Amino acid sequence: MQKKRIFRGLLVSACTAVALGLSAPTFAGDYDQYRDMFEPLPALPPIPADNSLTDEKVELGKFLFFEPRISSSGVISCATCHNPALGWGDRIPRAVGHDGQVGERNSPTVLNSGFFEAQFWDGREDDLEGQALGPIQDAVEMAMPLEEAIARLEEFPEYIDMFDAAYPDYDGDNVVNTDHVAKALASFQRTLNTPNSDLDRWLVGDEDAMTEQQKRGMALFADNGCVACHRGPALTDSNFHQIQVPGSEDKGRYLVTGEERDKYAFKTPTLRNVALTYPYMNNGETETLKEAIEIMGQEMLDTDFTEDELEDIEAFMHALTGEMPDITIPALP
Amino acid sequence: MQKKRIFRGLLVSACTAVALGLSAPTFAGDYDQYRDMFEPLPALPPIPADNSLTDEKVELGKFLFFEPRISSSGVISCATCHNPALGWGDRIPRAVGHDGQVGERNSPTVLNSGFFEAQFWDGREDDLEGQALGPIQDAVEMAMPLEEAIARLEEFPEYIDMFDAAYPDYDGDNVVNTDHVAKALASFQRTLNTPNSDLDRWLVGDEDAMTEQQKRGMALFADNGCVACHRGPALTDSNFHQIQVPGSEDKGRYLVTGEERDKYAFKTPTLRNVALTYPYMNNGETETLKEAIEIMGQEMLDTDFTEDELEDIEAFMHALTGEMPDITIPALP
Repeated sequence: MQKKRIFRGLLVSACTAVALGLSAPTFAGDYDQYRDMFEPLPALPPIPADNSLTDEKVELGKFLFFEPRISSSGVISCATCHNPALGWGDRIPRAVGHDGQVGERNSPTVLNSGFFEAQFWDGREDDLEGQALGPIQDAVEMAMPLEEAIARLEEFPEYIDMFDAAYPDYDGDNVVNTDHVAKALASFQRTLNTPNSDLDRWLVGDEDAMTEQQKRGMALFADNGCVACHRGPALTDSNFHQIQVPGSEDKGRYLVTGEERDKYAFKTPTLRNVALTYPYMNNGETETLKEAIEIMGQEMLDTDFTEDELEDIEAFMHALTGEMPDITIPALP
Repeated sequence: MQKKRIFRGLLVSACTAVALGLSAPTFAGDYDQYRDMFEPLPALPPIPADNSLTDEKVELGKFLFFEPRISSSGVISCATCHNPALGWGDRIPRAVGHDGQVGERNSPTVLNSGFFEAQFWDGREDDLEGQALGPIQDAVEMAMPLEEAIARLEEFPEYIDMFDAAYPDYDGDNVVNTDHVAKALASFQRTLNTPNSDLDRWLVGDEDAMTEQQKRGMALFADNGCVACHRGPALTDSNFHQIQVPGSEDKGRYLVTGEERDKYAFKTPTLRNVALTYPYMNNGETETLKEAIEIMGQEMLDTDFTEDELEDIEAFMHALTGEMPDITIPALP
């Protein structure tokens, strides 16, 4: 049974295997060839030249991330939908924000988001600095005009001191400004990484870090071509692919670019910590990991995975859960 | 100036001083007599006989406290209004809950609430077990029928295991039940205490734990009779007193008892950590500590504190900030 499955997998994804210069495994347990198809998660993502990562910015960013008073109601913070207790997501289908309004899309986890080269499901921002100010202003999220958010922060001498410490070379008039808020939030988020998953430890040589089932799942994941899009350190190509998951009419990236090829296209989501970030897909209508794998097989690969294959891939998905960042709750002013 | 103020304070509150068996201080710096008027905060509040405090119940209670999925929207938890980042309160005038609805009253901190002998502003519950289930069901708070909250928790094998561990002697059918939810939440809250404030350390003999100004404030607080209601380990008598603060038409405890004497009566709030739990009063309309002290002087004591007196009492209020409980964010299932 096992041999047959791996053999079938190799046939189905022959193109991928050839493209990646793979040779067939010499025996069923030989997974070494897959090591080159994955990347261990670095300790930190790339840091932009104009936003150096400093302790002071990270600390300020943490305060702002947990700060509900920069929302219109005063009770919604970044941490409401990107809840550290819930894998830095919210584990409900679609985000619930200001006045209980329900958004159009599932809240993505912010874990490892510094590794993404596009932000939001539709990539409407390139980087975390661009992303950070969106939810504060969005009418169905925090619903707060930026100038009011800034004014609220300026009421606190503690915040002014923290902004001064984070931007010591700033010589303008108002150190509490939207650019500095965005840079601090981005800096904090760049520290929210989850290294040392079972996969990462296997990649650097710990043979026992993954179970045999997880290794089979890894082989299936690679051989079937999942890795074509879910690749790189965060297991996303940060690119956009057309997909219409059950229940979704969302036109996705088309709403940003207006280009026909982007209709129903969404950014490949990270698979790191995917076992923690249910429910799945842009509309959050897929409840379990196994269903998500099944749908992706059908929609993207035109493949009906067998029950055993689904279970193996699901086991591999659990190998992508890393060490959660050790964040203490800040004492806000 | 200082002598005059203390002298005046003693005159004003002569009845209180006599009632408490105090003699006049022999010199301005002699605060020893005030030691008996305050109580250091014990490490734990009284534990009820039918809800022993165990690690398993406290851990379960912590999970439930941070669990937004027992709210109707899926995003509001106990920690939304009793936010550990905000002194375990919310620092807005009145609680914002389900669908952005605004409640009638200011969210009280849950810190040291195990020491209260009445719960809620109107004392409609006696203990934390009674209190715990209220906000889950309240239509303007978490808006979740209890049976649905229980059903959601039962979806998680992890929660069933935690309830089993917390109630090992339970031999009924459904270990995930409202009684067990209430007892776990109450148990967790009984661990949220803030010992070792400046006052506490002074009370046990550290003369330098409070500044001279704080000691003057303490004397004013005692001599003017504030301590008549703000007494005991949590600086509340857990009793009800008529007060109409600016902007409030709230009939308070009358809505619970229907008794005339309870009209506009509210429970004496704790003063522990009062510097962290702004804004103040049942309607949260009082923004600063100094205003709150001024209003209390006028409303409850018929006293107009001088500016110096207000500042001294305010300084003393800061001596009531204790060590915050060291809570890590739980990783919810």
